[in-house]
Amino acid sequence: MAKIKTIGILTSGGDAPGMNAAIRAVTRAGIYNGFNIKAIYRGYDGLINGEIVDFTTENVSGIINQGGTMLKTARSSEFKTPEGQQKAYDNIVKHGIDALVVIGGNGSLIGAMKFAQEFDICCIGLPGTIDNDLYGTDSTIGYDTTMNTIVECVDRIRDTAQSHERIFFVEVMGRDAGFLAQNSAIASGAEAAIIPEDSTDVDQLAQFMARGIRKSKRSCIVIVSESPKCGAIYYADRVKKEFPQFDVRISILGHLQRGGRPTARDRILASCTGVGAIDAIMQGQRNIMVGVRNNEVVYVPLSEAIRSDKPFDRNLIKVLNELSI
Amino acid sequence: MAKIKTIGILTSGGDAPGMNAAIRAVTRAGIYNGFNIKAIYRGYDGLINGEIVDFTTENVSGIINQGGTMLKTARSSEFKTPEGQQKAYDNIVKHGIDALVVIGGNGSLIGAMKFAQEFDICCIGLPGTIDNDLYGTDSTIGYDTTMNTIVECVDRIRDTAQSHERIFFVEVMGRDAGFLAQNSAIASGAEAAIIPEDSTDVDQLAQFMARGIRKSKRSCIVIVSESPKCGAIYYADRVKKEFPQFDVRISILGHLQRGGRPTARDRILASCTGVGAIDAIMQGQRNIMVGVRNNEVVYVPLSEAIRSDKPFDRNLIKVLNELSI
Amino acid sequence: MAKIKTIGILTSGGDAPGMNAAIRAVTRAGIYNGFNIKAIYRGYDGLINGEIVDFTTENVSGIINQGGTMLKTARSSEFKTPEGQQKAYDNIVKHGIDALVVIGGNGSLIGAMKFAQEFDICCIGLPGTIDNDLYGTDSTIGYDTTMNTIVECVDRIRDTAQSHERIFFVEVMGRDAGFLAQNSAIASGAEAAIIPEDSTDVDQLAQFMARGIRKSKRSCIVIVSESPKCGAIYYADRVKKEFPQFDVRISILGHLQRGGRPTARDRILASCTGVGAIDAIMQGQRNIMVGVRNNEVVYVPLSEAIRSDKPFDRNLIKVLNELSI
Amino acid sequence: MAKIKTIGILTSGGDAPGMNAAIRAVTRAGIYNGFNIKAIYRGYDGLINGEIVDFTTENVSGIINQGGTMLKTARSSEFKTPEGQQKAYDNIVKHGIDALVVIGGNGSLIGAMKFAQEFDICCIGLPGTIDNDLYGTDSTIGYDTTMNTIVECVDRIRDTAQSHERIFFVEVMGRDAGFLAQNSAIASGAEAAIIPEDSTDVDQLAQFMARGIRKSKRSCIVIVSESPKCGAIYYADRVKKEFPQFDVRISILGHLQRGGRPTARDRILASCTGVGAIDAIMQGQRNIMVGVRNNEVVYVPLSEAIRSDKPFDRNLIKVLNELSI
Repeated sequence: MAKIKTIGILTSGGDAPGMNAAIRAVTRAGIYNGFNIKAIYRGYDGLINGEIVDFTTENVSGIINQGGTMLKTARSSEFKTPEGQQKAYDNIVKHGIDALVVIGGNGSLIGAMKFAQEFDICCIGLPGTIDNDLYGTDSTIGYDTTMNTIVECVDRIRDTAQSHERIFFVEVMGRDAGFLAQNSAIASGAEAAIIPEDSTDVDQLAQFMARGIRKSKRSCIVIVSESPKCGAIYYADRVKKEFPQFDVRISILGHLQRGGRPTARDRILASCTGVGAIDAIMQGQRNIMVGVRNNEVVYVPLSEAIRSDKPFDRNLIKVLNELSI
Repeated sequence: MAKIKTIGILTSGGDAPGMNAAIRAVTRAGIYNGFNIKAIYRGYDGLINGEIVDFTTENVSGIINQGGTMLKTARSSEFKTPEGQQKAYDNIVKHGIDALVVIGGNGSLIGAMKFAQEFDICCIGLPGTIDNDLYGTDSTIGYDTTMNTIVECVDRIRDTAQSHERIFFVEVMGRDAGFLAQNSAIASGAEAAIIPEDSTDVDQLAQFMARGIRKSKRSCIVIVSESPKCGAIYYADRVKKEFPQFDVRISILGHLQRGGRPTARDRILASCTGVGAIDAIMQGQRNIMVGVRNNEVVYVPLSEAIRSDKPFDRNLIKVLNELSI
Repeated sequence: MAKIKTIGILTSGGDAPGMNAAIRAVTRAGIYNGFNIKAIYRGYDGLINGEIVDFTTENVSGIINQGGTMLKTARSSEFKTPEGQQKAYDNIVKHGIDALVVIGGNGSLIGAMKFAQEFDICCIGLPGTIDNDLYGTDSTIGYDTTMNTIVECVDRIRDTAQSHERIFFVEVMGRDAGFLAQNSAIASGAEAAIIPEDSTDVDQLAQFMARGIRKSKRSCIVIVSESPKCGAIYYADRVKKEFPQFDVRISILGHLQRGGRPTARDRILASCTGVGAIDAIMQGQRNIMVGVRNNEVVYVPLSEAIRSDKPFDRNLIKVLNELSI
Repeated sequence: MAKIKTIGILTSGGDAPGMNAAIRAVTRAGIYNGFNIKAIYRGYDGLINGEIVDFTTENVSGIINQGGTMLKTARSSEFKTPEGQQKAYDNIVKHGIDALVVIGGNGSLIGAMKFAQEFDICCIGLPGTIDNDLYGTDSTIGYDTTMNTIVECVDRIRDTAQSHERIFFVEVMGRDAGFLAQNSAIASGAEAAIIPEDSTDVDQLAQFMARGIRKSKRSCIVIVSESPKCGAIYYADRVKKEFPQFDVRISILGHLQRGGRPTARDRILASCTGVGAIDAIMQGQRNIMVGVRNNEVVYVPLSEAIRSDKPFDRNLIKVLNELSI
């Protein structure tokens, strides 16, 4: 393996607040340590199409507090084919890229892992996803911002819920993970959360709400994790039948959860893992994700990072249950 | 007409940020000027049911910056009946209320006007609605906050729209008025607005977007005013057919538009009109709405305030059109 | 006077949120209507030094929601000299600029007026200042954002003032005008405001606070308009002597009042006056400021805009007084 | 030791955002598990003076998102005397309080520890301080909110710093710890941080800034941790002498850093440690602080929690240094 001189960087998959801070960190720490930085636009598609430009420290000025990703992002279907990967690799060779830093979520890191297995290329992943569903890091870049965005929205909805004494079902993102739903429910003082990790049947929910009603609580907020089968609309409809006397409303927060200025914590996580990616390259690490555990930068093999069983802290279910009385 | 000694206050209809600041202003200015204040809970329903309590200055401490309404609100169907109005009037007499201050939107002020016509009671309206659709006041209490909430949401959505190069149709509130949609479109740098005051056919929209596409603008945001017939979903579907190459998404902002801390401007408007309501009562005014025009407190007859033809400044259409190139 | 083909644009004096939205509006409306746009960096200094570049619609993409000014700003002493003005004019001729749009406050518009008088150049002013001290416009670009920033800060300070039962003197900007102080005091529910338009002696303040203390109000916030002679420190010291039993603290908000994302209202004001500046040029207007009065765009002669006696609504003093009981 | 039936709760020392969420959590989890809750106002002073009231779940409704502390707080000098402690203990006996939950920072937990040593009382501490200087917990309640407040302020200041090309020295809180300064410097993209944990002499700072100036960076932000000896004013003065050509400004953020709505993370931390306090009592724990490490609730002996040597991650100094090029 030759010495690494040039590092490519791309963002892939759903955008997450803090991706720009991560781009800035990789670029600056890379240049600080003597590497050339090549920015790749539009994720793996841009690698296939050769949308690659040289970056200096100035290219990443003033982006640390901007949402989205200045490199654009995409979900590439072509990169899943052998032909697409070959084209991507040809561009990597053509542009003299020795290592690739990929900022993205589960699917993007799986792509990086397979690409690294197929071709002899050093791939470093950064955990860029609002869903917090990557293994081996306490938090992912974007998760803290999205949680605060959700909580701010629920704070607003509670104002109107209390004024009108209504029941709201608020649907939030999270893919297959309930981190966003459960934690934002605790943080917003919601009465209940419906998450994939814990089966909630409507009877339970009805019992729970009846408890509130006996206590003459007259408004109620339930956070529902997005789900192809049964999101907020499903549960709202079921509850409307059980409690015809209540005024039930639905709010699907949708895409606004992805955007916005990153929080301090997401900027710091992005900065530390971005610097950590350059450190990892200098130490000869390959095919790892850089995470943070217990306030320390850690390297996690990509194969482990993408495990689907990130532990869900069941104590959070107890906390929400005791505090919603 | 006997001297007014006791003033009742209620909020009615959809809640709006700044209603609490208005409740505080009426209560404090009333007490400052020697009146008794009686707070009525749950709008006209509370008047019918006698949910009436004495208020002191302490009751309204710490609420100026809170969204929603501490007095709760409702849309009363019983108050539209002669029997309901009679019950309400009986409670007014029973509690010694000499004048009634109603904070609400169009429907609530119509209710106040009819009530004042039927019974010999002094009714003063304050313009409390996010829709800005009351005649005779430059702005309504809640409108500025909701506009900022929308713009903040669209700022977030733009982050993800640009990162993914998507077209977003964002649906906002406004009842039958396009103030929120048109002004938030200008403020958020949206590419177009679809409002009731200006018929937009899909062909125009398609032409407009084709112009952007030729210029290789790769993301686009269209603000759509809510409408029973044709909201964001309708327009998004039509455009998807015209531009199958584009990635079209929908965001319906929904109830979160109502809540949140009121802006400085809404708090000032609520404070000035609340003090103005007490001044009006002391001057012997009856059955007027207190508004602000050109930074001056004005009294508008209720019959005029509820006119449905508040002028829409067509210059705003020109401004948006020129700036979205 | 030859036909105007090329328009120069600059920002000058203290920066204000919304200046970028104004730059965007002038640039886009100018290009929409067939003009060339030349951007001048660093205010009048940049005009003198020839820091002038061509602008397209892309140059102003993504800036509508950014604080500060992308064109930089400065207070130029050289421009006050005949030599400086001559150099500036030479550059205007050299770059073929036929009209100059100046975004700034009082001092900057005085500069524009004198320059227009001396040389035969069309100067259009936009009211860009947080102080709201320009005559002939209901509000200035930046004023609404700064007021909200102040109110947000005072909301925070109140949390700690109430928790510790302290008296806070909060000093805010405003140059020689009390608009920011008086209005932010009303909006934040402060107990008093000290402004240049209304002499407050310490005895009055002491009496006022004694009233609160008798009522057992245990925390208190006084907003003080900045002043070279007697700002927050002066009043705090005086009150400490009168009320040694109280815990008196000072907060000088300082420069953070200038920055931040512009509010919806500032973006709309900037957009409408920016488009209005191009309209004015097309109508042959010269040496006017574009403002907004009663929601309508108006042209105000520069000589009038800079009058120092913008009327202060004394009703606001009454409002604050009645509501702080 | 008799069975614990009644739990007292108080907040002490400097207020921190999230204290209310902690009060709510202790109250509700306590009642959920069958305890009586007694709220003590004004910290240890209130314990001495008997300001003690029964709390139900309704008392803590609607406070999870409010800054400050509804129980008020104070720094008690009387509680440091044997007489004061005896009075406090007498009130504990009189009100039948079996365990005391103290929410506060270093000084408050030292007070709790000494009190528990002197009298036979179960004391449980919650880490409520913006300074993050308590040992054994990854974060303290309030720290995340204050960091975000600082970063938001610096974002604003950067707008004006860049517009005017100025150097700003921004002073932030943190007592004897540089957590807030160092982390907010990374998060805000500041050029340097001056913290107690790392001696910065002015020569270094001058060299550092000269590097930036050679690169023609024309604005610069330095975050300075508060210090009795040498805060922002000291460093600004020194740099003014070294770089007379630069426009150097100071911003002391002051008390606004304490207030404001708590972030999602602070609300979750407060909720989990509040529930954890009740769990600890049920498990027979005494004289511990409840913290969170690696997303798990932990019990730390009070004597350990107050150690003054919470480790400072020196990697953060490297991160800031590499990213400020």
